[in-house]
Amino acid sequence: MAFWLIDDHTPGYGLMLRIDRTVYSEQTPYQHLAIVDTTEFGRALVLDGIIQTTVADEFIYHEMIAHVPLFTHPQPRHVLIIGGGDGGTAREVLKHSSVERIDLVEIDASVVNACRKYLPETACAFDDPRVNVIYGDGVEYVRQRRNLYDVVIVDSSDPVGPAVELFGREFYSNVYACLKENGVFVAQTDSPTFSKDLFQRVYHDIKSIFPVTMVYLTCIPSYITGFWSFTLGSKSYHPLKDFREDPEVETRYYTPQLHQACFVLPKSIEKLLAE
Amino acid sequence: MAFWLIDDHTPGYGLMLRIDRTVYSEQTPYQHLAIVDTTEFGRALVLDGIIQTTVADEFIYHEMIAHVPLFTHPQPRHVLIIGGGDGGTAREVLKHSSVERIDLVEIDASVVNACRKYLPETACAFDDPRVNVIYGDGVEYVRQRRNLYDVVIVDSSDPVGPAVELFGREFYSNVYACLKENGVFVAQTDSPTFSKDLFQRVYHDIKSIFPVTMVYLTCIPSYITGFWSFTLGSKSYHPLKDFREDPEVETRYYTPQLHQACFVLPKSIEKLLAE
Repeated sequence: MAFWLIDDHTPGYGLMLRIDRTVYSEQTPYQHLAIVDTTEFGRALVLDGIIQTTVADEFIYHEMIAHVPLFTHPQPRHVLIIGGGDGGTAREVLKHSSVERIDLVEIDASVVNACRKYLPETACAFDDPRVNVIYGDGVEYVRQRRNLYDVVIVDSSDPVGPAVELFGREFYSNVYACLKENGVFVAQTDSPTFSKDLFQRVYHDIKSIFPVTMVYLTCIPSYITGFWSFTLGSKSYHPLKDFREDPEVETRYYTPQLHQACFVLPKSIEKLLAE
Repeated sequence: MAFWLIDDHTPGYGLMLRIDRTVYSEQTPYQHLAIVDTTEFGRALVLDGIIQTTVADEFIYHEMIAHVPLFTHPQPRHVLIIGGGDGGTAREVLKHSSVERIDLVEIDASVVNACRKYLPETACAFDDPRVNVIYGDGVEYVRQRRNLYDVVIVDSSDPVGPAVELFGREFYSNVYACLKENGVFVAQTDSPTFSKDLFQRVYHDIKSIFPVTMVYLTCIPSYITGFWSFTLGSKSYHPLKDFREDPEVETRYYTPQLHQACFVLPKSIEKLLAE
């Protein structure tokens, strides 16, 4: 008998992953959490039935969400991660020697606990003394902070369930305010294939707040359609004109050349953003 | 009741598309052919259960397989397409005013007939007098031709069923020989995620024959994992140093900037190709 996980948050499309074993499963106060071993992508974190992280390709997502904004900033010292309870984004941020402190605001302590136990490849970051975990609501957290961070990374789940407000204009305004003078912000902004309206709205909301707003793309095989977007807002630094290189930061996916290439958008996506 | 197509040629992964209607279905001498209306991607051609072309995103695949080699060549006049029975690649090639003739060698006449009837968006190319359709075996065809083409495009299905030999070293040698002195060749080379061995072998085979060999990537949402590769072999022209622009060629996806960006490989893919 074979068990399959079906990631089907779009009605007419599903991504099926064969499950060799359910390692852990819990209904938390916020969502359904499962840790499973998949045949093709190794161990995975699944929230409300949606793949969040797989051992086989998590490095793509985590490197792209972390290194693009961190290399855009000349000297990131204080970083805020909203979400990111699997620890993968923090692991990548910690590779930058300028980083003195990461505040990671995760709403669901169960995510961190389960990942520490079952996904040590990503959760290793939580053992670093520079990482300060705060269990709470990211929306509320940024509302109460001002002028504190060089980089803010919104590493949330999709805009269903607990993450809905992390895709709203008011939240982005508060992110702007909690950044220091030359701060840089990035958010994962879903697949442009099935979330066209969201993708457009989020881009325009961020663009109405940040002087520099740019979308970049990558391909994450274990996510629906593979095609994935990130939206970057910056108070002054430009991700193509101001980005720096640091060969000391070891990566498996990101390169300085890819940093530049990922901002080159297909004509159909340019058109979508111009509408 | 809902019908679903499951594209599952990898054991532990499946891409499910909801089918609103089966428009046409036939067991041809070569493969099972179906034309279906999908909920998310519109009308689609399916061969042996694998998605080949959907109305919603066929432009990505067809523009990337056609324009990258055609813009690498300074004046492509004679083009050979192996496979490509849906007509989409020919449609893109015809946008180049220098093209005088396309020979399209498709093994399965049923593919062309079904697409002419049910997928006119792609099959419109067959009405153009510059397109010469030959029903036959592409492997045999290139074995018997010498020094004829400026560009050869291998727009085949995956290396299962009738397309297996189109991924072999002997075939690539014959492609080299049927190209003119400065000819350019490209093949779709599957998803690097699940076809690592094939992807590596094909790259090394082509590299052992063509002086210039380069891989480029794109993301095709209706294909498994989204992540898709093409491998280009060239006798002399370099796709980054020699490519030209022509604003007369109208596209929905391809841009000259994307032409350059698609050759920037993630470190993990560079590593795979260096092995």
